[in-house]
Order: sequence, then C-alpha cells, then structure tokens
Amino acid sequence: MHPLSAPSLAALARRYLSVRNATADLARPLSAEDCTVQSMPDASPVKWHLAHTTWFFETLILERMHGAAHRPFNPAFRVLFNSYYNAVGAKHPRPERGLLTRPTLNEVFAYRRHVDAAMGDLLTRPERLGAEMQGLVELGLHHEQQHQELILTDVKHMLSRNPLRPAYEPSWPLMKIAARTPAWMRVAGGIREIGHAGDGFAFDNEGPRHQVLLRDFEMAAYPVSNGEYLQFMTDGGYTRPELWLSMGWDFIQANGVRAPMYWEDPDGEWHAFTLHGRVRVDSNTPVTHVSYFEADAFARWAGARLPTEAEWEVFAVNAAEGAEEANFQESRMLHPVPPRTARTAPRAKQVFGDVWEWTSSSYSAYPGYAPPPGAVGEYNGKFMCNQYVLRGGSCATPRSHIRPSYRNFFPPDARWQFSGLRLARDA
Amino acid sequence: MHPLSAPSLAALARRYLSVRNATADLARPLSAEDCTVQSMPDASPVKWHLAHTTWFFETLILERMHGAAHRPFNPAFRVLFNSYYNAVGAKHPRPERGLLTRPTLNEVFAYRRHVDAAMGDLLTRPERLGAEMQGLVELGLHHEQQHQELILTDVKHMLSRNPLRPAYEPSWPLMKIAARTPAWMRVAGGIREIGHAGDGFAFDNEGPRHQVLLRDFEMAAYPVSNGEYLQFMTDGGYTRPELWLSMGWDFIQANGVRAPMYWEDPDGEWHAFTLHGRVRVDSNTPVTHVSYFEADAFARWAGARLPTEAEWEVFAVNAAEGAEEANFQESRMLHPVPPRTARTAPRAKQVFGDVWEWTSSSYSAYPGYAPPPGAVGEYNGKFMCNQYVLRGGSCATPRSHIRPSYRNFFPPDARWQFSGLRLARDA
Amino acid sequence: MHPLSAPSLAALARRYLSVRNATADLARPLSAEDCTVQSMPDASPVKWHLAHTTWFFETLILERMHGAAHRPFNPAFRVLFNSYYNAVGAKHPRPERGLLTRPTLNEVFAYRRHVDAAMGDLLTRPERLGAEMQGLVELGLHHEQQHQELILTDVKHMLSRNPLRPAYEPSWPLMKIAARTPAWMRVAGGIREIGHAGDGFAFDNEGPRHQVLLRDFEMAAYPVSNGEYLQFMTDGGYTRPELWLSMGWDFIQANGVRAPMYWEDPDGEWHAFTLHGRVRVDSNTPVTHVSYFEADAFARWAGARLPTEAEWEVFAVNAAEGAEEANFQESRMLHPVPPRTARTAPRAKQVFGDVWEWTSSSYSAYPGYAPPPGAVGEYNGKFMCNQYVLRGGSCATPRSHIRPSYRNFFPPDARWQFSGLRLARDA
Amino acid sequence: MHPLSAPSLAALARRYLSVRNATADLARPLSAEDCTVQSMPDASPVKWHLAHTTWFFETLILERMHGAAHRPFNPAFRVLFNSYYNAVGAKHPRPERGLLTRPTLNEVFAYRRHVDAAMGDLLTRPERLGAEMQGLVELGLHHEQQHQELILTDVKHMLSRNPLRPAYEPSWPLMKIAARTPAWMRVAGGIREIGHAGDGFAFDNEGPRHQVLLRDFEMAAYPVSNGEYLQFMTDGGYTRPELWLSMGWDFIQANGVRAPMYWEDPDGEWHAFTLHGRVRVDSNTPVTHVSYFEADAFARWAGARLPTEAEWEVFAVNAAEGAEEANFQESRMLHPVPPRTARTAPRAKQVFGDVWEWTSSSYSAYPGYAPPPGAVGEYNGKFMCNQYVLRGGSCATPRSHIRPSYRNFFPPDARWQFSGLRLARDA
Repeated sequence: MHPLSAPSLAALARRYLSVRNATADLARPLSAEDCTVQSMPDASPVKWHLAHTTWFFETLILERMHGAAHRPFNPAFRVLFNSYYNAVGAKHPRPERGLLTRPTLNEVFAYRRHVDAAMGDLLTRPERLGAEMQGLVELGLHHEQQHQELILTDVKHMLSRNPLRPAYEPSWPLMKIAARTPAWMRVAGGIREIGHAGDGFAFDNEGPRHQVLLRDFEMAAYPVSNGEYLQFMTDGGYTRPELWLSMGWDFIQANGVRAPMYWEDPDGEWHAFTLHGRVRVDSNTPVTHVSYFEADAFARWAGARLPTEAEWEVFAVNAAEGAEEANFQESRMLHPVPPRTARTAPRAKQVFGDVWEWTSSSYSAYPGYAPPPGAVGEYNGKFMCNQYVLRGGSCATPRSHIRPSYRNFFPPDARWQFSGLRLARDA
Repeated sequence: MHPLSAPSLAALARRYLSVRNATADLARPLSAEDCTVQSMPDASPVKWHLAHTTWFFETLILERMHGAAHRPFNPAFRVLFNSYYNAVGAKHPRPERGLLTRPTLNEVFAYRRHVDAAMGDLLTRPERLGAEMQGLVELGLHHEQQHQELILTDVKHMLSRNPLRPAYEPSWPLMKIAARTPAWMRVAGGIREIGHAGDGFAFDNEGPRHQVLLRDFEMAAYPVSNGEYLQFMTDGGYTRPELWLSMGWDFIQANGVRAPMYWEDPDGEWHAFTLHGRVRVDSNTPVTHVSYFEADAFARWAGARLPTEAEWEVFAVNAAEGAEEANFQESRMLHPVPPRTARTAPRAKQVFGDVWEWTSSSYSAYPGYAPPPGAVGEYNGKFMCNQYVLRGGSCATPRSHIRPSYRNFFPPDARWQFSGLRLARDA
Repeated sequence: MHPLSAPSLAALARRYLSVRNATADLARPLSAEDCTVQSMPDASPVKWHLAHTTWFFETLILERMHGAAHRPFNPAFRVLFNSYYNAVGAKHPRPERGLLTRPTLNEVFAYRRHVDAAMGDLLTRPERLGAEMQGLVELGLHHEQQHQELILTDVKHMLSRNPLRPAYEPSWPLMKIAARTPAWMRVAGGIREIGHAGDGFAFDNEGPRHQVLLRDFEMAAYPVSNGEYLQFMTDGGYTRPELWLSMGWDFIQANGVRAPMYWEDPDGEWHAFTLHGRVRVDSNTPVTHVSYFEADAFARWAGARLPTEAEWEVFAVNAAEGAEEANFQESRMLHPVPPRTARTAPRAKQVFGDVWEWTSSSYSAYPGYAPPPGAVGEYNGKFMCNQYVLRGGSCATPRSHIRPSYRNFFPPDARWQFSGLRLARDA
Repeated sequence: MHPLSAPSLAALARRYLSVRNATADLARPLSAEDCTVQSMPDASPVKWHLAHTTWFFETLILERMHGAAHRPFNPAFRVLFNSYYNAVGAKHPRPERGLLTRPTLNEVFAYRRHVDAAMGDLLTRPERLGAEMQGLVELGLHHEQQHQELILTDVKHMLSRNPLRPAYEPSWPLMKIAARTPAWMRVAGGIREIGHAGDGFAFDNEGPRHQVLLRDFEMAAYPVSNGEYLQFMTDGGYTRPELWLSMGWDFIQANGVRAPMYWEDPDGEWHAFTLHGRVRVDSNTPVTHVSYFEADAFARWAGARLPTEAEWEVFAVNAAEGAEEANFQESRMLHPVPPRTARTAPRAKQVFGDVWEWTSSSYSAYPGYAPPPGAVGEYNGKFMCNQYVLRGGSCATPRSHIRPSYRNFFPPDARWQFSGLRLARDA
C-alpha cells in the first residue's frame, strides 16, 4: 500500500469517524442486555464486537506506535478481546464471550471513546503515521465493517432464540418492487484474470491477481428466489438423498432441517424471522439463510450447479448492474428484497448486496499468495480449510466494504449469515 | 395448614412485602447485564429468578383465584418463567434461560410491581383469601426465599467465570472473631422423633413426623474448617483413591478437582473467590463449596463419617446454639465466617447458617409421605432420587427460612452452593 | 470367617471346580467372536469376564501366597484384566475392553486352566491355605458367580443389538404353569433385625446385622406381571409426568423409552427379545428389564410403593416359599417364567429367582459398616452412591449365590439386568 | 466402457479370482476375533469388509441380472452390509458394524464362496454379461481393492489399541537400501491436461479429462522422510501456532498430537507401531500417518507448500520412475521403506507406492463431471466436500489399482491411512 499524503490522511480520518460511528449506531436499538448475551459459540455478543474492533486499533496500532510507553485502557482487555491472534498472546475462550457481564456496555463505549481520541490524534499527524500504519488503519476499518455485518447476523440469531420473537427494528422502509424475469446469461471462457487489481484496499486473500482458465458457462440473471426454493421443497427436496452431498444429508438429518434457517410454519404457512420480526415468506425475494449444503442440493435439483468463484468474479465484473441498485446495510432493509427495478440487458440483477452467493470453490490460497508477517498474517490465511467461498455481499454489508474480488468464506453448514445462491451451468 | 384470622392476614401481608423487597434488594448491586446471563445450566439468571418467583404468585394464586377472568401481565410469561411444573404446562428449556434478553430487567420489575399490587389487594380480604390460599402464599414466600439464596450462589458462579473477578459487594462488614476449640459431643440413641412438628410453616418433605431408631453417636462441635481441610489436602487427600467413593474419584479426575470450588493458588498460596472478590483462605472459617464426594472423602480421611439426617436433626434440636448467633443472609457477610463467640457447653457452634452441612442420607420420602395434589405436588417429591440431604442453612439463607427439620438436597457433585460438613462418628 | 478343617477344604476344592466349570459352560453356546465384543460401556465381553474372574484368583490369592516368587501367566494381564481395584494398580479402560482381540478366547481358556491347576494344588494343602485365604477363595467364587450372571445379561444385550436377533440358546425347557392369584400380605412392624447372620458366606455390605424400626406394611404375594405392566402402559403410564420422578421423566424422554427394555411391537403386538430369541410377551410372567424409574412410576400408578430393603428382607425371611420352587440359572430357563405351582398361604411366590426386585432404598452402609483392608475393601463400599438396592436374585443367578440378606445394586436407569418389582404399601 | 469380447471376458474372470483371493489372503493372519472388532467409527471390521465387497457383487450385479428370480444368500445381508448406498435402501449404522458377531467369519466366507460361484458362472457367458455389467464387475474389483487397503489400515488401528501391541505379520521381508539425495525438480507451466485418458478402467471422479492452467513449479525428488520430519519436530513444529491452519492447531491441541500417529517415545526414543509390531523410527523412510494439517504445517515450516493435484499429476506423468520400483501391497513390506535404488535423473523416487501424498486440493468435481445414474452414482460424487486429495498410492495399495489420475480423498484430520507428503514450491 502506498503512503497517503496529508489530504488523504484527512480523508482517512473522516472515514475512521464514519465507520466507527456506524458501528455504534447498530447498537442503538439494543438494550445492554441484548448486547451481552451469546446465543451460540459461532456468534459473539454485540458488546464483544464493539470492544474487539476497538482492541484491534489499540493493540495493533496504538500499542505498536507507542511501544513501552503505551498505557492500556485496561490491561485485561488485551486478552479479553483478542479474537484469534496467537501472535498477540492469550485469548479469552470464544464460547465464553457471553459470560462477560463486565465490562458493562457503558464501559465498552468509554473504551471506544478513549481509543477514538487517541486514534484521532494520530490521524492528524502524517509525520508519525507512515504508510504501513495507514494501511493498518484501513485494514482496521474494513475489519470493523466485517464486524458490523456480524453484529446484525449475531443479534438476529440471538433474538430468534427468544420465544417472544422480538424485532431489532420494528418498521420496514418503504420500497417499490419490479417484476422478475429469470434468464440465463452466457459468459465466454478462455484465459481470464481474477483477483484484486489497482491501488484501492483489498484483503490479502484477494491477491495476487492471476490468470485462470475458464470454459464457456452461463449464469442466472437473478439469485434464486424464495418462490423457486419453495418449489424445491414441495418437490421433496429435503427428503431425497440423491440430491445431497453425503455430509449435507447427514447434517439435515441430524438437525431436522427441512427449510431455510429462521423459517417456521406453525399454521401451515411459511414465515421467516427477520430483523423486523416475523414476516410471511415472499416469493420474489432472494432465498437466504441456506447452507452450502442446501445451495448445492437446490442447484442439483434444478439441473444446474453453483459457479466457481472465478466464474462468479468474471461474471460480476462484466455483467453486474450498478452498485447504486444494490441493497446494502445502508438501505436499512436489513433483509433481502425483491428487485426494485426491471432488469436491463446485458446487466444481471442483485449481484451485489441482498445475499451472499455460495460458490462451489473451497476457500484456498491464490497462486503465489503469502500472508503478511506479524499478527495481521493471521487474518485470512490460517482459515483456508473446510470453508467455501461466498461472493457479492449482502443486505448487512456496508456498501463501501464490498468489491468484485471480495472473498467471504464460511463452513458448509453455516446458515446464520445472509447466504443465498445464484445458479450456473455449462454452456 | 389452618386458616389465618384477619390480624394474621395482616402479618402475612407484611411478610409478603418484606420478602419481596428483600429479593429486589439482592439485585441492587447488579447491572442489567449481570442479571441476564446464565453461566451454567444448573444456575439461572437473576432476572429469571425475579420473574419466576413472581410467576409463582401469578400462576398458582392469582390465576387460580380469578379463573377465566384472570388477565395475565404477559401471556408468554406463563411458559417463559415456568421452572418445572408439568401440571402448569409447557416450559422454556432450562439451559436457554440465559438467552432471554427480553423482557428487560425493567420490564421484569414492572411485572413484579403488577403482581405485588394484585397480591396486596388480595391480602387485605380475608373473606376471599381462604386458608388454603393463605397457605399457598406462605409457600410462595418460602419459595422466594429459596430463590434469594440461589440468586446469590448463581451470581457468584457467574462472576467467578469472568477473568476480571468482579465483586458482588466489594466491602465486608466488620466482625469480631472467637477462638475455636474443637470437641466431640455425645448423643444418646434410642427411638427418637424427627420431622416437622407444630403449626408453623414447613415443606411437605419435612413430614410426616415419625420415629427413627438411632444408635449412640458423636457429633463435632464445629463444622470442618478450612485449616482442617488444608491438612487433608496436604496429606494427599485429592490423590488417594482409597479415600473416595468410586463415582467421586471419577468426578475429581474428570474435572481436575484438587481443592474446593472457587479456590485458586496462582502464586502458591490459596485464595478463594467470594461475593466480595478474591480473598486469602482463612484457617478458622468453615470450609465451603465442597461436593458430597469431597465431604465424604474428608470424613473418611479424618476417621469419622458424615451424620445421617436423623442424627443431624436430633443433634441440632438439642445442642445448637441460639439462632441469634448464626450467620445468615441478613448479616451481609455473604460468606461463612469464623465463630464470633466462644462455645458454651453443651451448645455446638454454627449448626445453623454459615454452611449447609452434607449428610450421608440420600434424599427420600419419610414414611407415610404423600405430595399434595396439583402443581405444588411437584415441589419436592419428584426430586427424591440421586440427591443427598444438606441441613442447617448457610450464610445465604434468610433467617426466617430455616428450621431444624429443613431438608435441602443436591446431587453429590454440586459445589456451587455454600456447602460444607460437620463430622460424626459412632459412640 | 473361621478356618476350614481339611474335610471342608476338600469341599471348598469341589466347590471351586464346580463354580469354575459352570462359568466355562456359559461360554459354550458362543463363538470366539461372540465372546470378544463389548456392546456398551456398562457391559463387558464374555472373554473379559472369563479372564477377570481368573485374574481375581491369580492376583489376590496366588500372587499374595507366592510373593516375589510368583510367575505370572502373562505379566500384561495384571493391568488388562483388573476391573476397578486401585490398590492393585493400573487398569485397562473399561470402555475399551471390547478392543482386545488378543489374547484370543483359546488363550484365555489356557489362562483359566493354568490358574485352576495352581489353585487346585493350593486347595489340597490346609497347612498352607489358612483361614483368611480360604475366605478369599470363597469370596472369589461368589465374585465369579456374580460374573456368571453378568455374562448372561451382557451377552443378551450384545445379541439384541444384532438385527439378526440371534438366540443364545434356541430351545426352551418344558415347564408347567399354575394360576396366579394376587394378594396383599400383611407384615407387622416394630424393631426387627436385618443383615447377615451366622457362619455362612456373605459380602461385607450385608453386615453388620442391626436393628431397624419398621411400621406395619403389606407386600404383594407375587412380583408385578407383564399383564399388570401392560395395563400401566395402556393407561398412558409412559406419557404422564405426574407418575414419574423428575429424573426418570427426563430419562424416558431423552431415550424414547415407552416399554421395558427388549420389548418391540413392529406389528402392533408386543414381543420381547430373550436369550432364546424373540417371543410374544406373556401376561403371567413377571415383568423384567425395567429401570428403577419405571418400577417407581408403576408403583405410583398402582397406588402403592416400592418396599424399603428392610421391609423386603423381613418379608422374605418370613414369607418366601422354599427355594426349591425358585427359577435360578440352573433351571436353564434364562428368563423369568409364570409361577409353576399354586400359592400356599402364608407363603409368597417368586420371592427368590425370576427377577431382581427394586427397593426404594438407596445403596448405603449399614450402621457400623467398615470395608475390610486391602484391595477387597474396594469390592462394595466405594459404590455406595446413586445406586438403588435390588433383592432376591433372578433367573440368571446361581442358586448357591443368593441369600435373604443379599444386596444387589444398580443405578436407577439400569435396565439390562433381569430387574422387576414387587409392590408394597402402608398397612 | 466398451463391451469385452469373449477372450477378455476370460481375462476378467481370471482377474476376478485373483482379486477375490487376494482379499481372503489378507485375513489369513487374523483370528475370527480380530476380524470382528471395530476400533473406531471410521474403521470397519475385517469381516465387514469381506462381506461388503461381496455384497457389492451380489446386490449391484447378481440381483440386477436375475431380477425377481434372485435368491439372496441371506436377505438380511442386503441391509447389514450396505455401506452408504441410499439407492439400495436401508443401512446398518456404521458405528455399529463391530456389534455383528453374527454372521460368523466362517459364514462370511461361505457367503463369499456362494457369490463367487454365481459370479464365476456369469463370467463364462459373454452372451449374458453385456458391456455395462462387465464394467460393473471391473468397478466391483477396484472397489474390492480399495477395501483391501482399508483392511490393512483398519486392522493396524485395531491392533494398535491393544496394550499387547500384537503384530499382524511378525517378520519383515529382506530388502536393500540406497542412498537418498534430495533435489528439486522443475516443471514448466502452461495449459496442460489432467484426468483419465484412454480405454482402461478409471473411477468417474478421474474425468472428464480437461485442461488446466499451471505456473512453473518445482517438486521434490523424494517424499518427506522421517528424518526431515524429526527436524520439524525438534524445531518446535507442534508448538508454534504460526505454522498451522487454525483448524489444524485446534485439532492438535484437542487431541494432544505431538508426533505422527502410531509414534511413541516411552523411553525418549521414537518408535512406531507397524503391521510388523513396534520398530524404531528410521530416518530415511518416508514419513507416514500424518494428517493434512501436519503435512501443511510441515510444508510451511520448510518454506515450501503442498502441490495442487494438477501439479502432482503433471509431475507424476512426466517424472515418476517405473512402477516396478514401487513398494505396493504385493511387496509384503506393509510399511513405507527407504528408496531401494539410487535416483536416476530425470526421474523422481517413490512417486507411486509407499505413502499417499497429500495435495492442497480440496476434493471437488472436474469441469463437466456428472456421476453415473443409479446406486454407483453414489460412489464418489457425494463425498466432494471437506476432503483433500491424496495421490500415488501406498504400501497397502495393490499395484494394479493405481494410476497417475487416481484421486484418493480423506478429511484433513485423517491419520490412519498411509498418508505422507511431497513438497512443492513456486519456480
């Protein structure tokens, strides 16, 4: 990453404030109690997210800038809010994050203010904050945006476990809806390039940019909708082993899965729990909260397949509609929605936002990939095992966080993210 | 139970207020977050205790008094705050009590006020509140006192799991300490009577009063102290299988137990986590937070045994010092303490309060015992399996809650209650 | 125990041969494969039983007699076939007994012959085998008889897990059946004595003989039959929580229990798997393979209760029919059977043999009990926790093994023994 | 697959006999007991392997050829010995394969003879056994060869769990050893083809043959040796989290892994349990029984990486020494061995045989892959999730079973196969 000149350091400082404030805003509809509880080991309390994103700046930037002179806000936080950085040292056990009633939510906000003040000071001093550290600040902000998305998915999971089915935000924004006209779009194969290019920020796992060899293929113009998914269900999708990966079949048997996560049909009609409470399942909305197993089984049932991540990226770069159409966190929909405008060929709809799209690609290193030295080297590389890549961002992703080369990844049984799919097939 | 006349109904109303307020007082040092988290399936959140004790009055008294006309505060609470009453219907699963961030703590206090107002109204109307219902009110208050004790033990467990080791109440009350002069006290055997007698309140499991046949025996004048327990530890108590029940040996192996619960020796010196934070282990204080297994092993090591509950009760009735000496919840010590006055023969010290004393008696029905009909029949009888009886109350027990015939019971591996022991031996 | 004179040493030698041969006979219908597999941690492979009973004589008698001069058959067996004697040293883990394909069954029989030869030599030399060692031989033979019963129950469990439902012994002996005329029999209370008396062999846990105080009570003249138990089932016995201990209700929910173990109704009619294969459930046969939880629930449903072990013993001493009527292992029925003769007042039927009868007594030490020193002190005492006493022996018990004072014990969820019940009630 | 003419049907019949006999030979050193036990859910009893491979011919060929006229050897076997074919119907649960003491080993051999006779009859009748069925016979034989390898690895695991550490085959064949001269070998990138080509047998997952785009890379001339692996261990390989995938680090922590599977150092010197019993670890022998996690960590420590499966295949096709050098099952070494001849450039050593080599490739479908219809479609495709590809065969693989395009696959924590690694690096 290149050193930033003073004017762009000011831009970085503005962005710092903006991202940090957005995080705090997400906690606004929540009580201190809501922010404390951990509803499963995969999810974290909101309070922990608020503190850990702050820990990132304190431990990886302030502590390193100040060296021995650094006065920690609270020395215990170094361990308490370390997520998985072995290079930093000990960590509070992940499944016990929900036992931490102290520090209180107020104390965590004080921690945020304390670190923000120190960061604000640094961000006015180009002579001290060199290029590498500015890169780390940028990384810290993208890191925080990832946790913004997790705050929403983790709170959703926690609220869903409460029989009162409380809403995170009761009202829905108004919106207009357009007709949905499914179609296949052809993409020519050959040697293509994928991976991050240019000067903008990207995570290490998005590079190096490199050539891939693709065959001709087709992609669906829309993500799979609830209506299409209901057809799969009606056709016995969850009861036909021939449609499933062996591990997926075992998973749905062991967990009694018979619909996407958060779907319920207490009175014979499908409803879904959303961040706005329980709503009737809408046919034109992209299906979400499906595992890789379900995405894969649906694709097999439909006579299609999931795209590879290389196919997805080539397609997205060339055929996605403008990002201004996309349903990101900023829309406050907080749920996928039907397309809001008609499709204009040759553009595909809802490539970005709404739902993360599972690809068939196991998450692995690009050719020539090497993680950076130090703690931030643990950010991505060490998770390249038994996870599958998702692309495109979701309704919970901040708009400024996503790129065509962005690689999200989750284990194949993960369902609590806003995960959906788009079909591909051989041309 | 006999009908109460109007004057004593007033007394019942006063007692109602006093017990209910005492519960709310226990939550005062705690944040909403502290009141929400569940640190293990055996423990419950404070908020749940606050609501469940209220549920008891609403469901078993108000609902029954008003019949179909009853307007519940919130219909969902009937399931949410049912502990284990199958006769009432469905129950929220016990291990998921800590997922309930809603209702908030404030809403639970509103629930308490609502029910207290309705109960206050009833408690002024002797013509409506007959003898049986007055008995249920009394039961509800003793039920609430049991939960007061659990609030303290459950909060203690939760705080202990936080690496910050926060105190529930930082300061200790002042107190004086007296010398400790251990001695054996002889009790003559023969046919004796145990079980509740008289008009006062007692749980169903304390009766019927009945004859037992005892042999001559001796009891220790003091409960076992930390100093005595440390001798057991120093003598290899936790590493000598011949001292242990087979199941106890497996338990300490599987859980790495090598000291009472809450003891730590990070720097080679034993400290204990208390509701006032971490303190050095004091030799003259009764040992607490030991399981039945540890109590049994200690007794074997000491060449003695645990008393049966009949022995304990006969001893307590005849030899206990006055209850005014006892360290109950009201002392705000919230931890066992050394004896505060010298022993005056023929009285034993610390029979009541300080620590519950494990007996060798498996919890079972007295001859002729039958639980009452209806939901309250589930209060005690159905738990008479694989639990052991403890006697005497602890530093967390309200003074007005305990009696010589009182039978507490926990599984033999339970350690988070204020449980200790007193030695017995054959005469 | 008193020293045996030469003539009775000869009797002991004869008994040794007889018991040891009876064990080997039990393995006769089984293949080497049948003798190797362990179908659950609670059960052991037949090969292990054959070796462990031999280990008892080698380790506790031969090794002690010969001291340093002892030449073990195979030094590894000392660990491999130690069950739970910490005083002897290390043990092969219990759940891994079924991994031992070596030694082979043939090698284990060679081990038995080797030890039998050495024991046979000792048993001709009264000058060497003093009273204490003769007592240990007697203990070893009773120990072996316990394992004979376990061989049958463990093989039954293992065969039941095979979808081929193979029979241990296909044919049933012929027998005649008598009518069953249920009745209550009254027993007067007062101070009575229980526990082993006299010179014969008894386990340490059967003493000391001591006084108990009983109230007047009644006992059923017959154990509960399948027909009676089917009435309980038809009346919703397994679906009514008010009939169950809380722990029992959880147990049947978690395990889907809705009938005694080994019962199946694939075509709507109840069958039971027996050591002779699958048979139709017979109404007049004592019910068996029920847990303490089921026995307790049945008794509550029937408006009665389980007897205490003191009540059972006083009743058995006074009212049992002659042992010659009893269905023990020697009958080769290997299953409980209906009464074979009519009841002759004042005698009760089937008190001994057929099925072990659950009592309401938690297994604990009699007053004044102390286990013997050394390894054999681990035989009984250390298991006195969370188990319930059964009395009377079963169709799998050798006749010479049982006594009125005999105390068997199992956890309340154990079902794979031949366990049934007899009702009691207050007079 | 093309129809076979009569002469080649005769060859198929000969091959049938040869493969089937080789399987039976593997059971020869084992007792019936050895063949019955299952030492972990991932492994199966030898008896089950013997029966399941026979089931394959009976169910997928004989039953299909004869239709309704088929008389099964034992109707229960259809369920009992079905591994994972949902299209065939119900299956006996995998973790309970070790409970099947019946059928006995002798009965299973009778089952094999019965099916072999019927197959022998078919294999003389080209007019009845058409091309598709002949292809299924070929598949069945390759299937059986896979189970031959599993018999060896599963028996090894089972024997290793016995404290007696019994040998499968006590003696080792004699062999000569050559010096080992490590080197890197360069392979030019570009568009290359991988996947099965030609008329010979291959599994469906080896096709379609397709183009891949490779960059220049280098491969090690030898697999990693024990000596090299010991350097990794000495350098703290198992204690440095930065060398490990996150999931791998958790795996070795949770399981206390600090050396390859089957390694022990009771007296400070490393030994390994082999099918010939326990031997000292030899420096020049390829390391084996390492998980993907360990292979990956070793490669990172060595400043190299694992090859992709495409790299491995291109390398193997061009640079492997002749298969006559390879250590396959037929050598009866039953363990990897040092190189037996010096390396002759430009050939690499031990590419085939000795140890399966982990690649970095997640097991997934080749472009255009579609499983065949029917039960055999479940052979490979449904396992394409969370597994990693291994290449080259091992000392337990039959020589006629392996090919350059052969794709073996196991989860990343699997260690009981003869799995090792060969290093790659960017050129």
